[in-house]
Amino acid sequence: MIIIMRPGATKDQIKQVEEKIISLGFKAHPIFGEIKTVIGAIGEKRLLDTPAITNMPGVEDIVPIMKPYKLACRELQQTKTIIQLDDITIGGPEIVIIAGPCAVESEQVFYATAHKVKKAGAKILRGGAFKPRTSPYSFQGLEEEGLKMLEIARQETGLKIVTEVIDTRDVELVAKYADILQIGARNMQNFRLLREAGTSGKPVLLKRGLAATIEEWLMAAEYIISTGNSKIILCERGIRTFETATRNTIDISAIPVVKELSHLPIIVDPSHATGTWKYVDALSKAAVAAGADGLIIEVHNDPSHALCDGPQSLRPEKFTQLVEELKAVASAIHRRI
Amino acid sequence: MIIIMRPGATKDQIKQVEEKIISLGFKAHPIFGEIKTVIGAIGEKRLLDTPAITNMPGVEDIVPIMKPYKLACRELQQTKTIIQLDDITIGGPEIVIIAGPCAVESEQVFYATAHKVKKAGAKILRGGAFKPRTSPYSFQGLEEEGLKMLEIARQETGLKIVTEVIDTRDVELVAKYADILQIGARNMQNFRLLREAGTSGKPVLLKRGLAATIEEWLMAAEYIISTGNSKIILCERGIRTFETATRNTIDISAIPVVKELSHLPIIVDPSHATGTWKYVDALSKAAVAAGADGLIIEVHNDPSHALCDGPQSLRPEKFTQLVEELKAVASAIHRRI
Amino acid sequence: MIIIMRPGATKDQIKQVEEKIISLGFKAHPIFGEIKTVIGAIGEKRLLDTPAITNMPGVEDIVPIMKPYKLACRELQQTKTIIQLDDITIGGPEIVIIAGPCAVESEQVFYATAHKVKKAGAKILRGGAFKPRTSPYSFQGLEEEGLKMLEIARQETGLKIVTEVIDTRDVELVAKYADILQIGARNMQNFRLLREAGTSGKPVLLKRGLAATIEEWLMAAEYIISTGNSKIILCERGIRTFETATRNTIDISAIPVVKELSHLPIIVDPSHATGTWKYVDALSKAAVAAGADGLIIEVHNDPSHALCDGPQSLRPEKFTQLVEELKAVASAIHRRI
Amino acid sequence: MIIIMRPGATKDQIKQVEEKIISLGFKAHPIFGEIKTVIGAIGEKRLLDTPAITNMPGVEDIVPIMKPYKLACRELQQTKTIIQLDDITIGGPEIVIIAGPCAVESEQVFYATAHKVKKAGAKILRGGAFKPRTSPYSFQGLEEEGLKMLEIARQETGLKIVTEVIDTRDVELVAKYADILQIGARNMQNFRLLREAGTSGKPVLLKRGLAATIEEWLMAAEYIISTGNSKIILCERGIRTFETATRNTIDISAIPVVKELSHLPIIVDPSHATGTWKYVDALSKAAVAAGADGLIIEVHNDPSHALCDGPQSLRPEKFTQLVEELKAVASAIHRRI
Repeated sequence: MIIIMRPGATKDQIKQVEEKIISLGFKAHPIFGEIKTVIGAIGEKRLLDTPAITNMPGVEDIVPIMKPYKLACRELQQTKTIIQLDDITIGGPEIVIIAGPCAVESEQVFYATAHKVKKAGAKILRGGAFKPRTSPYSFQGLEEEGLKMLEIARQETGLKIVTEVIDTRDVELVAKYADILQIGARNMQNFRLLREAGTSGKPVLLKRGLAATIEEWLMAAEYIISTGNSKIILCERGIRTFETATRNTIDISAIPVVKELSHLPIIVDPSHATGTWKYVDALSKAAVAAGADGLIIEVHNDPSHALCDGPQSLRPEKFTQLVEELKAVASAIHRRI
Repeated sequence: MIIIMRPGATKDQIKQVEEKIISLGFKAHPIFGEIKTVIGAIGEKRLLDTPAITNMPGVEDIVPIMKPYKLACRELQQTKTIIQLDDITIGGPEIVIIAGPCAVESEQVFYATAHKVKKAGAKILRGGAFKPRTSPYSFQGLEEEGLKMLEIARQETGLKIVTEVIDTRDVELVAKYADILQIGARNMQNFRLLREAGTSGKPVLLKRGLAATIEEWLMAAEYIISTGNSKIILCERGIRTFETATRNTIDISAIPVVKELSHLPIIVDPSHATGTWKYVDALSKAAVAAGADGLIIEVHNDPSHALCDGPQSLRPEKFTQLVEELKAVASAIHRRI
Repeated sequence: MIIIMRPGATKDQIKQVEEKIISLGFKAHPIFGEIKTVIGAIGEKRLLDTPAITNMPGVEDIVPIMKPYKLACRELQQTKTIIQLDDITIGGPEIVIIAGPCAVESEQVFYATAHKVKKAGAKILRGGAFKPRTSPYSFQGLEEEGLKMLEIARQETGLKIVTEVIDTRDVELVAKYADILQIGARNMQNFRLLREAGTSGKPVLLKRGLAATIEEWLMAAEYIISTGNSKIILCERGIRTFETATRNTIDISAIPVVKELSHLPIIVDPSHATGTWKYVDALSKAAVAAGADGLIIEVHNDPSHALCDGPQSLRPEKFTQLVEELKAVASAIHRRI
Repeated sequence: MIIIMRPGATKDQIKQVEEKIISLGFKAHPIFGEIKTVIGAIGEKRLLDTPAITNMPGVEDIVPIMKPYKLACRELQQTKTIIQLDDITIGGPEIVIIAGPCAVESEQVFYATAHKVKKAGAKILRGGAFKPRTSPYSFQGLEEEGLKMLEIARQETGLKIVTEVIDTRDVELVAKYADILQIGARNMQNFRLLREAGTSGKPVLLKRGLAATIEEWLMAAEYIISTGNSKIILCERGIRTFETATRNTIDISAIPVVKELSHLPIIVDPSHATGTWKYVDALSKAAVAAGADGLIIEVHNDPSHALCDGPQSLRPEKFTQLVEELKAVASAIHRRI
């Protein structure tokens, strides 16, 4: 950590900061410039107690030189984390396809969709039983009844199941049915939920918050890893910007950035990012080409009758064709689907 | 709700949309333009089931004409909601000052700060016992021990207490100690927490999320009101933008916009919005001048030793002087502190 | 255009709006809903003079139903615009690679870079002679001397030349040397410059502004087309968001959105979007997979000594390898480089 | 400037960076930490040639410790810049009111508005003769004919004149008529225009770009000051964010931030920031309370017939009342209007 002193900071102020740094267990290393003095704080500790210093007289700014996350960081673990679910590998050379409707609604439609995405090449089935909806008047999910339908779909198709949990009180229940727990974008900084999900021991699919920097996202992952559970799948799903042509703006650069900073696998949700099925094709290909470890795509047997997010769902036929085309893109970058 | 058809939509497609609208219980009212046809859907229902229509052939766009929130809306209730806490009135001509440290830490410092903000003119004491922190390695709050210190501070000073709740499982506990429950920015769309807080019957201070539009914020308020509890205090605390000179960008326009759209009182948190005590003075005055019904300001007896958000805390002396200056601004717009 | 009246708008107010619409040459078509009345304005004119109506008593909102750009719009021209520069085709099945240094600096380095990008497969050479720099103290370009070096590089390599123009007074000069005029992001709404560039008759590479919506970008293109010059290449180069891990956030969704709305070709600048050469590889592949008609990539023979934007430049060897890999991605989506 | 080396940077890499720093005329001052080494570059020069270092092996990041602007900086000039226009003082204790229509349109309406804003207390008249419009089909201004009307209004009322210049070729012409040249938000980084405006010797009203950080805005001011003209009035007019309730989001914090960083006066444009006359009242008061040195407000005698931005214009009666109320707010913070 480096402390930048204001121009005109007195010798006494500099000395007080040095003494403070030493009292916190660091070595102080000042550099006297022409206009400003900077003081390096050297030590084993990662996080210096910054308010103690920021407010001292003469201090202009503090520059951290270490990342605030450590367990999620490449510096700690050079090799990529690979998550194994029986014969499915997430984070390896294979690109995993997760598909299904936004919400589990009616049995008939759900099972039909499940069979079709399985046939098209998906390995994991998505479907929400607990839905975080912007409006209290919208369909909020079938809850445990929906979880049971997910269970049946797993037995019928052999697909693994990912489903969202939105309340600390439901983690145990959802973990009983799901192979992967999903933390939604709105709950990315619901720290209690992160801890509970981590403690469940299940793999966690962690969506990026709409206003979350990549650093904050990795800090959210750090909450989960700090429970001893490093089976985390990061999911880019678009950030909020001024552009209104798409629901959110997918941050495709997050893929190479995350791969540089962290050992955790990263997948992309093109359906929520754009909010329109028409753009899912182009974004899915872009994500694969940019190095994503997987995709989570909304597919609905009958989008016009979906109770949730119909406009962004692909029909199974379109999805089947897309997966075929994605195989060619994956092959072009020496990966496979 | 108005459905805009694509240029070149066929007569048959238009007819199908009309039939769909009618089957959903609306009257269909088409207008045939030179290039595009639009269809008005007239009825008593507020929310039309849009996916059912968006995905129909020939449909280009759907334009809602009613606000999605109804209980939080000025259209429903013309008069402002006034929240009464004994002799404190929130939402009336008086501007209420809430002050205190970010987190409850040590007894001595906390009680001393409480007495000073009371003397300066604050009516409500803030202090976090449960802290949502970006890093799992940061101080997370004293939990129930902190709540007990809030209780003592109330007895000693007569100040009312507002404190944050971050987990549905804690609502009952926090409601036992607090006069007002705070929902933080990161939990603005933690819908389960909104419902639990609403159900507690306590007034709720609802902070705006960093990436939340004003409409989404009012929808979050709608979740609370729909439990039968309309004692909601909206709190603008800055949104996330590209500017990095301040931690967030306070959206001062939100004050007149919210006052036009909703009957709920709105206050401002200049401390979290800027992240720097130096700017709290200017922003507090701006908020009062713009019509805010209150302010929530961080004050700490010893900011250099704060475990949380020290850099944005005012010392009690500075706070006392600020309140005096705010009284003049309030008076200039015919309100009082 | 649809006018939404406030709830409680009087019959008289509605009548006045209808009369106003008629006086402006439209037919008025009211729909009386339960709570609100909406009035359709039907006519041949595209842009209704909205302030005349917005400020009328009882008017709540106006909803346009036509795009504000017409010449740039797919509705007008279904087939894609293809720009032909001798044997180079932009907007067709082939994906064009533009490469070169940010700025033209020294002759030796520039010609060496030009030969190498040509050999690697680039068809067009980039290089700035007039540089819009954030700081007045940064290198501002070699101006006409730089243009002459571009001319020599063209003769030596046969590459076409694209270079930026930043002042209406320089358009004639730059057009004398360049095959394509570049309008930079900061000048996207420098409307006089757009007109001059259009009037030159040269193809124009129009970068998207950092804060420009896709609609505003297409409106900027409309300025150029309205001079009679439709040889426009749109260039996505990142928008400004809160994320700081990359210099800007590339809006990869802009590719399918623009292709749906407009007939103009669209290319991507991964170098300026990220500001870091490390991420250029992943973003270039993403852009091709998403359907971009070309790429403009910074390549510098000696990035450490670049006077401008060195950190984002690829070395020629890395660029050569990237082009090879891009060929495989292009092939996977049935296009070629 | 401080260079942060990657963890695992070799001794040799560190040595090479040190040698590079020395070859650029600085002293190198390394600090060897447990995990990372940082190197201070000490010297008189402000801007280190960063690409030369960023791309060196082993370098992770570079942290500047000096502001990139120097002439606009408080560090250079402690006292505030005061701009004197006969008896009008901008940047002193008085708050200056600029008012008038968005565009100069018809003589009758314009002169009538001018007289009314003068009577209400405005000191400077605004009115655009050259209009930068998003659409090529919108009214683009009366050009020199409009300038002549500004001249007449000045003679009739004694008000000073501020009007926008949008093309380097027009600076001389506009400077002949105007007392203050306005650079619009879209041209904030039109660096040639900044230089020409600076060279004219006239005071320059420099609007902040929609996507410009405060630092970039001050760098734009630096372009003007570096021509020897420091008569610059900064104008905050809203930045682009995700919020759509207002046209832009006014960054009210920019007032105290700019006052801390720079000696230049800062005013606020509440009309363009919100795009709606209804919110101008609250924002004007907020700006004054936050410490703005002035306001620029759109006033139109007949907003319904304005050719440009009618919806955000106040009628003269409303404006007159607002100025009266602003006097009370100014007085509350010990300033005057």
